[in-house]
Amino acid sequence: MTNKETDEYYINQTIELARNGIGNVNPNPLVGSIIVKNGSIIGKGYHARYGKEHAEIVALKDAGSEAHGATLYVNLEPCCHYGKTPPCTDAIIKAGIKRVVVGMVDPNPLVNEHGIKILRQHGIEVSSKISLKECETLNKVFIKYISTGLPYVTVKVAQSIDGRIATRTGHSRWISSEPARKLAHRIRAENDVIIAGIGTVIKDDPKLDVRLIKGNNPTRIILDSELRIPLKSQVLSDGEQHQTIIATVSDDAKKIDQIRQTGADIWQVEADENKRIFIPALMKKIAKAEKSAVMVEGGSGIITSFLKHKMVDYLVVAIAPKILGSGIEAIGDLNIRKVDDSLRLINQKVSKAGPDVIFESDVVFPNESGKGN
Amino acid sequence: MTNKETDEYYINQTIELARNGIGNVNPNPLVGSIIVKNGSIIGKGYHARYGKEHAEIVALKDAGSEAHGATLYVNLEPCCHYGKTPPCTDAIIKAGIKRVVVGMVDPNPLVNEHGIKILRQHGIEVSSKISLKECETLNKVFIKYISTGLPYVTVKVAQSIDGRIATRTGHSRWISSEPARKLAHRIRAENDVIIAGIGTVIKDDPKLDVRLIKGNNPTRIILDSELRIPLKSQVLSDGEQHQTIIATVSDDAKKIDQIRQTGADIWQVEADENKRIFIPALMKKIAKAEKSAVMVEGGSGIITSFLKHKMVDYLVVAIAPKILGSGIEAIGDLNIRKVDDSLRLINQKVSKAGPDVIFESDVVFPNESGKGN
Repeated sequence: MTNKETDEYYINQTIELARNGIGNVNPNPLVGSIIVKNGSIIGKGYHARYGKEHAEIVALKDAGSEAHGATLYVNLEPCCHYGKTPPCTDAIIKAGIKRVVVGMVDPNPLVNEHGIKILRQHGIEVSSKISLKECETLNKVFIKYISTGLPYVTVKVAQSIDGRIATRTGHSRWISSEPARKLAHRIRAENDVIIAGIGTVIKDDPKLDVRLIKGNNPTRIILDSELRIPLKSQVLSDGEQHQTIIATVSDDAKKIDQIRQTGADIWQVEADENKRIFIPALMKKIAKAEKSAVMVEGGSGIITSFLKHKMVDYLVVAIAPKILGSGIEAIGDLNIRKVDDSLRLINQKVSKAGPDVIFESDVVFPNESGKGN
Repeated sequence: MTNKETDEYYINQTIELARNGIGNVNPNPLVGSIIVKNGSIIGKGYHARYGKEHAEIVALKDAGSEAHGATLYVNLEPCCHYGKTPPCTDAIIKAGIKRVVVGMVDPNPLVNEHGIKILRQHGIEVSSKISLKECETLNKVFIKYISTGLPYVTVKVAQSIDGRIATRTGHSRWISSEPARKLAHRIRAENDVIIAGIGTVIKDDPKLDVRLIKGNNPTRIILDSELRIPLKSQVLSDGEQHQTIIATVSDDAKKIDQIRQTGADIWQVEADENKRIFIPALMKKIAKAEKSAVMVEGGSGIITSFLKHKMVDYLVVAIAPKILGSGIEAIGDLNIRKVDDSLRLINQKVSKAGPDVIFESDVVFPNESGKGN
């Protein structure tokens, strides 16, 4: 292997390590680190949970005194500021690391090449932008959050091949196969928040949890402009460990009190011109609560609102091998008149979950350039 | 290899040979034949064109006198009746073939194991039902046609991921990518007939030809109940080599005469209760014209009619990585109320054509069992 190939090889390994933190580190980035000396890995680590030690520190502890003179690989530039933990640059310098290979520069304005600069000032050789695209894809949530102050939004739709999420009568159980529903629960567990509309709650009374897999239940946010939620809904009654927030533009004090008594929180959000929740205001509120990864599951009206506000980063569509004919459409009116004005879906991944086809992609709005590539 | 594996190996080769006839042999079956002696292939052939020599005859001629004592492989039971050509069983017996390996039995009532029986009566060892599923898939068109007297129907849809074939304004050029459109032309060339609705002709004035690839133009049948077709439509004006039939329930003698003057044919078909073309009657007429493979491209109303009449065997959906929002739906009302009553899509194949996902499958209607497997 050339030096470049060796660097890419180890950075790709740090990415794999970093993935162990998925679902637990937001709004921090996913980071993995490997320490190599004389061609052997002598230490490794990853950022396992928000507030816990950074990957570099875990790897340095793992390597111990062997770290002196070694090369440290890390998919994201080491931090140089005091956050929940002391700066990683200090620990790297102190351990006598000779060379640092960085996947991507930290877009956090508190770091942003400053970590690399400090390492170089201490005589450490630094290479950066190695396997850059892979590193950026890994930390797409963090990059969005730190650079825009908004959460990264994944919309997940389960539909028939003709784009229906329910029959004409509203019947929808189950369009997706069990493996596709498991996948949906896995995506839920990777997100901090799951958003659903009050229509879905009234019709299906869903739990919006991750019972089909092992993982964390995301905070449930129900968009309920007029506080129509039945107090016996499962999202209000299924326990203390699973947070529910009812977002509303209503100030019905009695209903608010009743909802609070179930243990759920109320978020009063700015209204749009139709006296419904103004999506951009809600998203800012979510970001302010340090939740960076949001999943939107529907119904159709909610998904369409998010698309209209250009508030969708990623789309996952589970396409069931079924035809329903006229029914409830997955996506409503976006005021698109020409095919060229359609929303584009790029960097696609196509896979199977049971009999269902899983289509995933970045979403690009008209007049935006592509992301990533 | 075991004997069974050897037999399957050669039958699979006959299938590959048979494919050379795709687009040229309907309503005959696709047939390939290989002759093997002492482990070497000494002759091969396929049925190249309707009315021409059968595969076995081509292979026997290729092998010449060497055929004596050899094994003949063929994906479909040899014929034993005089059709356009003399019976293949005669030629096989005369050539001194020792053993015949047959993929599938011929469902044609004129053959249907009788060919095998005749060979055995002449002391030839016969094995049959080898790679049966592959043989049946190859000849799905022939099997449908010979056993039901109806053509095999492929519906092809080009849609956005949200199931739209056009925007709200009817704009649809181009939802599909160029590679997906080429694939559509390839499917056209494999069919004897392409059906489109008058709405599509009036709106898009399509050629419905195979200009993007090398292949045969299928006969165009335009469903035009009220004879609304503009006489300047491209399907009426683009030449003698490409047949157009206008199917109608109208008896407007003047318009019929005008259409005939363009070179197109008129088919007057039984009307349904809405005074529109009764699809099952049309299909019988097509089969009677010895056309066994029909492709339906739309619009939405035509596709929905075919689905309602359970007249669809195969579905090809080119899913473009685009979101259009409300628009013209690919498939209209099928009066389905429960997800369990949906049409099922089985034996799926998923591939890519450019950025588009190509989904293909057999179509199973409620209360039907699966086909094939």
